[in-house]
Parts: sequence; structure tokens; C-alpha cells
Amino acid sequence: MNITVWNEGLHEKLDPKVAEVYPKGIHGCIKDFLEEAGFENVRTATLEEPEHGLTQEVLDSTDVLFYWGHIAHNKVDDEIVQRIYDRVMDGMGLIVLHSGHESKLFKKIMGTKSNELRWRENDEMEIMWNVYPSHPIMKGIGANVVIPHEETYGEFFNIAPPEELLMISWFEGGEVFRSACTYRRGRGKIFYFKPGHETYPIYHMPEVQKILVNAADWAYTEGATPVEHGHFPVPFIKTLEK
Amino acid sequence: MNITVWNEGLHEKLDPKVAEVYPKGIHGCIKDFLEEAGFENVRTATLEEPEHGLTQEVLDSTDVLFYWGHIAHNKVDDEIVQRIYDRVMDGMGLIVLHSGHESKLFKKIMGTKSNELRWRENDEMEIMWNVYPSHPIMKGIGANVVIPHEETYGEFFNIAPPEELLMISWFEGGEVFRSACTYRRGRGKIFYFKPGHETYPIYHMPEVQKILVNAADWAYTEGATPVEHGHFPVPFIKTLEK
Amino acid sequence: MNITVWNEGLHEKLDPKVAEVYPKGIHGCIKDFLEEAGFENVRTATLEEPEHGLTQEVLDSTDVLFYWGHIAHNKVDDEIVQRIYDRVMDGMGLIVLHSGHESKLFKKIMGTKSNELRWRENDEMEIMWNVYPSHPIMKGIGANVVIPHEETYGEFFNIAPPEELLMISWFEGGEVFRSACTYRRGRGKIFYFKPGHETYPIYHMPEVQKILVNAADWAYTEGATPVEHGHFPVPFIKTLEK
Amino acid sequence: MNITVWNEGLHEKLDPKVAEVYPKGIHGCIKDFLEEAGFENVRTATLEEPEHGLTQEVLDSTDVLFYWGHIAHNKVDDEIVQRIYDRVMDGMGLIVLHSGHESKLFKKIMGTKSNELRWRENDEMEIMWNVYPSHPIMKGIGANVVIPHEETYGEFFNIAPPEELLMISWFEGGEVFRSACTYRRGRGKIFYFKPGHETYPIYHMPEVQKILVNAADWAYTEGATPVEHGHFPVPFIKTLEK
Repeated sequence: MNITVWNEGLHEKLDPKVAEVYPKGIHGCIKDFLEEAGFENVRTATLEEPEHGLTQEVLDSTDVLFYWGHIAHNKVDDEIVQRIYDRVMDGMGLIVLHSGHESKLFKKIMGTKSNELRWRENDEMEIMWNVYPSHPIMKGIGANVVIPHEETYGEFFNIAPPEELLMISWFEGGEVFRSACTYRRGRGKIFYFKPGHETYPIYHMPEVQKILVNAADWAYTEGATPVEHGHFPVPFIKTLEK
Repeated sequence: MNITVWNEGLHEKLDPKVAEVYPKGIHGCIKDFLEEAGFENVRTATLEEPEHGLTQEVLDSTDVLFYWGHIAHNKVDDEIVQRIYDRVMDGMGLIVLHSGHESKLFKKIMGTKSNELRWRENDEMEIMWNVYPSHPIMKGIGANVVIPHEETYGEFFNIAPPEELLMISWFEGGEVFRSACTYRRGRGKIFYFKPGHETYPIYHMPEVQKILVNAADWAYTEGATPVEHGHFPVPFIKTLEK
Repeated sequence: MNITVWNEGLHEKLDPKVAEVYPKGIHGCIKDFLEEAGFENVRTATLEEPEHGLTQEVLDSTDVLFYWGHIAHNKVDDEIVQRIYDRVMDGMGLIVLHSGHESKLFKKIMGTKSNELRWRENDEMEIMWNVYPSHPIMKGIGANVVIPHEETYGEFFNIAPPEELLMISWFEGGEVFRSACTYRRGRGKIFYFKPGHETYPIYHMPEVQKILVNAADWAYTEGATPVEHGHFPVPFIKTLEK
Repeated sequence: MNITVWNEGLHEKLDPKVAEVYPKGIHGCIKDFLEEAGFENVRTATLEEPEHGLTQEVLDSTDVLFYWGHIAHNKVDDEIVQRIYDRVMDGMGLIVLHSGHESKLFKKIMGTKSNELRWRENDEMEIMWNVYPSHPIMKGIGANVVIPHEETYGEFFNIAPPEELLMISWFEGGEVFRSACTYRRGRGKIFYFKPGHETYPIYHMPEVQKILVNAADWAYTEGATPVEHGHFPVPFIKTLEK
């Protein structure tokens, strides 16, 4: 199982505060804890690499893609977006993090203006409540996960209705948010996970890491038969007769 | 369209504070605002009436049933529960309010131990966020409904996953709750709505009334063909040949 | 309530057989039965009109849009597709018919390659089974609808999982198909309805007409509050205090 | 992981034809192929054993229960039904086979009269189409599974709407059926799988076995934290302060 962790990778260069929280970049941090959890083939890729580091070859050998982006969604090439989308259709798992909800990719997959929500940055506490305790992604997670300080996101969040809603977040300021949602598109599985503002050490939290490790396992589609489609001029039952 | 509002009706007799908030009973209050909204045939029924006021005749002529209960769920006769359930299967709409989640009826419909949740009574503010603004039940409701003081309910709420999740509640104390949920069972539509602790004047709030008026319209199943089932010894396509 | 019926409108010009089945075009036929059902404001629009007949003004005054297309999906201008999509987000209902599943619009809304399915044209019988008898769109529809001859569509149909599955089709040749599905995106409701190959008089069938009349009523979103979103620098509870 | 295969076990004793198809009983056949697939702890239990073979001790040590029943649903003790249900709530996986849809247990879990459907026994071909190719239960399964002869089941099947619909069946006689459906209740996962009439060698088919082996893996809930519920007099955020 091959994992690629994609990160825009700009905040870390532009903001020393972010560089301090994530000295190896958000992608480096995620790569590290995935490897510690036992995944052996974890690569990273970032916006400023050629083809954003997501060549056809890289994507063809990726089973699960993590995606973090924020300030440069419009710099992501449409052709690369299509390429990722095509791979999701073919069965690549996709884990969209935090402000990745505004990406061209996520909007294309949702079929909505998923950039629409309420937000502010004022260091509020976020309490994520587990509303699907038996889901594989929630394995080992208790009644809730408390994040001491996070960017606030609030409803209405303009997503397609989640196929599975795993967690609901409470914010100090009065908002709530559907913060852990699953979808499927084509043969691909998609997990949206809200936490991870760049200035807080959220991806260093053991419970967040556990959720993302579980999500990598869950998003991996093994052995899905390619989808047959097109013109079948002979009725199916005629193909069986003999 | 005939509506029956069923209420346990005990708090109002036992607790002067409740009687003050609801001088005509919770059922009387709901009946009144439904009538003000234009429904012409609204009846009430309570636990201590013969057959709890829900005779076969009453139920047979009920299109939508409101159900509020709390301290006497075990006093509701199993036979009457079955009778209500049978009518839901046949297409009667059902609106379960507040602690009705603990009723025999709701557990029977959920297929879960829906009495399981976190709760406390300490006058917290509840903010209900609208996560499905285009649903008929949310017609005319804005981004949220603020309830100044309510009993707190918190997740994990052990319900079957809602078919439609309309509102999520935020509580001052840190909890969240799926507080407006729809289901269907047989030909019946079910709406669970969380607010309505007996000591607060919640059913007097215009926004709550609007939601419940909308819900009555929504829950009414008009023209659903009875479900055919049983032994059909002749293949369906043979019945078409001529 | 304003309805616009959009049709590609080419088969009717190119194929006398189709012109014979639909002398006023597929759009004309649909317009006629909607008007007979009592809708007063029904317009039509077709591909070859300026802006495909879907100017901003037309769409802004459309509550429900019917959409039939087949052989010229690529001739639909991207800007018009975006314009329709934007209106769906804002609450316009959308009813996608038959090979409309291959349209740019439907793919954009699904987030999948919804053009993928099995198909053939060999005059098979289609039996549509009602699996959601209490849904408003199924009002007055019995256990099934029999279409004597139709184009065959078969699974796997690469759609997002339907939020509500209303009908499943059986085909003589051995295939099945999810042929009546609902979705919501933004504040808009979407209904996909499979029947309607241009060479068969399917939109003349009373049961098909009844379903589409019901669907127009259902797809109309009345009174949905516009979605608030963006930067809310003040915590919501601070806005309540005083 | 411990599996218990429960079978009514009466047809095998009463009907030599069934005994010939399943010399070790349906339960014996299922046990055998599960063991061949690598599951090490597989037990069987049948109706006529004391407590139907499902003592508290047996259920407490069961992670996934298979359930086949048909002609003696009313002979299953209510207390045992409650015991199985309680274990499902606590996280035991449940796989309900064929006419198990009529069992007290399945009705209790569905919240519907799930015994309602169309049926006949006339040796029709059943073609099960895969409508969720990326689901773990469909791993290794192609576009469809063809069962040469089966009892026919037809819609409308009065179940709660499936959370995931994996397969839809086509029958020679013109019917369709939602034949592979998943649900969750409490912390338990439930899979309903339609095939398996006692007179046909369906559980000997490799593709059916593959689906049921996958289902056992899927239904196993590992590491789900017990559900906290009850009276929490202290607001959650107060418990965090220090």
C-alpha cells in the first residue's frame, strides 16, 4: 500500500510560526506519523514541485492520497486536478484535510460550492464528538477529541450530505461543524477531516494521528473490480445460454 | 388531514411550575398553535384516558401523530404501542418530541436503544444549527434557532443513522446533539425533534412552532399505494402477456 | 412557480421517426402535460436558441428546470453549464431525464463519471419497481410501472449513491438499473429519472407524466433561507449577549 | 475473532432433498467454508439445542453471528432474541441470511415489518448486480453473480432504507430485489444477504462464499469504545478545566 501526502507547502516557507510548528512541513509531519504507524511506502509531494509532485506515474502508484491546501488553490493546475480525480474514480483513496474543502478537487468531487461555511481564527477550543463509534476510522477513539485551540468552522457547510458522519465539532464561540465525513465516488473512498490549521500543532496530537492512520487503512480499496461500462449489444442473459 | 397530539400529561398535574408554563398541557399548547397555523382537525389524547386516548378508531382517523412522553414510558400499554406502530407502517406520520426518544414506540421504530445519550438539567443555552436549509421542515428557518434555556442532551445518541439530519445543537456545557432527524419505516414518515423540556416555554417559541407546523405537513403521506406483498405464484411478466 | 423545460431538440429535427413520436419536440410534450396538470408558467428552451435559451434572466425566474440531452452534450457551453449549476446551488430544482446522465451538468453535480453504465437499444421491456412508495414523487404510483419498449441501461451506473432511491428497473435482457434517484446540492433538489428514449412514446404515458408532475412539485424549494457563509470574526454567542 | 453460525436446522431433518444438498446442515456448510477461508474459531448453534445454542456465554464470546431461519421463527424464544439484540448493540456483527428477514430478530433491528415482500418458488434464475464495487464485502466480486435457480423475492421489500446497497437482484419472472444491504445499530454492523433457499446448493457457490467471508471481516467491529451515556451533571467543559 502506497501513500502520498500532498501539501501546498507555502505557509511553512512564508510564516516562521508555521515553520516552527512543522519544521518538516505539514507533509513531513504526516509522513512521519504514518511511518511510525507501520506504513512502509509513504511519499510526499508539494505544490511547487514540477506537476505539483503529482505526475501520472506518482498517482498511478498511489493507493491513498492525503491533501492539504489553503492559500493557493487557484495555482493548482486544472489538468492535475483532473488527473487526481480520475485516479479517485479508479479507486485511489483520498483524505482531504482542513481548508482542502476549498480546493478545486474537493468541489469537483462534492458537486457543491464546498468552500461555503462560516469561519474565524481566534484560538477557540474545538471538541469533536464521536457520533459513529463503530466506524473503522473511529477505532480506539473515545467519546470525543478535545483540540485546545483551532480555527473555527461553522455550519451551514455546503457539502453533499455525508454518506457517513463520524464526528461533530463544538466550538467555544457557539458554532457546530460536521468535521469528519465520508463519501464514495466511482470506486474511490473519500474522507474529509476538518482539523489542521497550520499555526496549531494539531497533527502532532496522538488522537488526530490515530484517526488519520485509521483513515488511510479505510480509504484503501483493495480488489475492486474495474467498472464495466459501455455498449453491450447482446442481452446479458443471452451471453449465459448454452 | 387529521392530527392527534398525544402527551403523557403527568408533569402538568404533578408540578405547578409546568402547569404554569403549559396551563392547557403541552398537548393543549401544541394543538393551539397547529390550529392557528390553519390545521382544522386537531385532537389531543393523554396517557390516563382509556386506551391512552388512542383507540383503534382514533388512530385509524389520524394522519399525523405528535408524541410527547417522559416519566411514564413503562405505563404505556404494549398493545397500544403495537397499534401506533402498525399505523406508522400503514402511512401515519409520527413526530416524536424531546424525551419521547426513550419511549417503547421510538425504540421499536429505531431498532436501537435510543434511550442512550448524555443529559443534564442546568438551564444551558441550546443553539440549533440548520444543516439542511432546503428541507421542507426548515422552510422559513434561518441559520439557527436559539433556545435560551433547555435541558442538555449530548452525543453519542444511540439512534439509527438519520436518513436526513436537519439540525445540530450546540450546548453551553460543551456537548452537541443531532436534534432534528427524519426516518421512514414502512409507508410512514418519522421526525424526531429534540427540544421541549417541560419546565421551559419552548413550545411557545414561534420558530419551534414553525418547525413543527412544517413537520406536520411533511409527515403527511398522501396517496401512498398500499404495499403489495405475499405469495405471487405467477411470474410478474406472465401476468402481462396477452 | 415557474418551470422551464430544456431539450437538446436535435433528434426531432434529424429523425422523422422521433418527429412523429414528438411532433412538438420532447420539450413540447413535457410542457403540455405539465400545463394539463395545472402548472401555469411553463416555458421551453432548446440547444440552438441563443445561449441555449437559458439566459441569466430565464434561469433567475425558473424554479424547476427539466433537462433532456443526448447527442450534443459537448455543444453545451461551459458558461451556461456553470450558470445552471449556480442556480441549482441557490435552490432551483433540477430534473434530469434519460441520457441527461451524460451531460456536463449532471457530471458536475454528481462528482462522478456518471456517463458510465451499460446500454443497448433493442426494444426491451422495462419494469420499474417502486421501492419507496411513500415518497411524494411516487404519489399515486402502484407497485410498478411497465414500459413496453425502452433503451436498456444497466448497472454499474457510476453515480454518487442516491440519497433516496425511488425505483429500480428490470430489463428483459437481464440487467437492472437505479432509475429514479434523488440528490441535494446546495439548496437545490435534483431528481434523476431514467426513462425517455427519443424513439418511444414514453413521455406520453400517464404514469410517467404523473411521476414527473410529482417531481416538479417536490423539486420546488420554497422559502429556503439563503446560506450564510464567510468570515464571522465575532463568536456567535457574543452577538447574542446584551 | 470468533464466529457463530446459527441455523434453524429443521429443513435438513424434515426434507431429504435438503439433507442431500447440505449433509452437514446449512450451518455445517457455512462453518466449513469459513474455516477454509482461514477463520479459526467458528462454532455452530441450532434451534433445538438448549437456549437455541445461544447461551449468554456463547454470545459474549461471539464477534460475528450468522443467522439462517425460515419455518420456525415463532419458536425462537423472545429472551434469546433480546440477548442477541443486546449483543448487536454492544458491537457483535450480524449477518442475516435469506428468510431470516422474517425473524423476530431482524424485524426488531429494522423497525419495520420486514417480512413483507413478494415471493414464489419456481426455480427462476437470479442475477445479482454489483452496485457498490468498492465496498469491502464486494472485494473480488465482478459485475454480477449468477445463481442458476433460486426462490424469487420481489419488491416492495419493507425494510428500513439500506445505509449501503451493495447488490440488486434480477429475476427471470420480472421482479427485482435489494439483495445485499448493510445497516448499523448501536455499535453493531448488520449485513442482510438474500440468497440461500434451502433446496438449492447456493452456499456451495464460490462467489457466494467469497461475499460471506468478506462480510464476516467487515462485520467485525474492533476496538469500538463502549458508548457512554446517562446523567452527566457537570458540563463537559468544566471537566476539562484546570
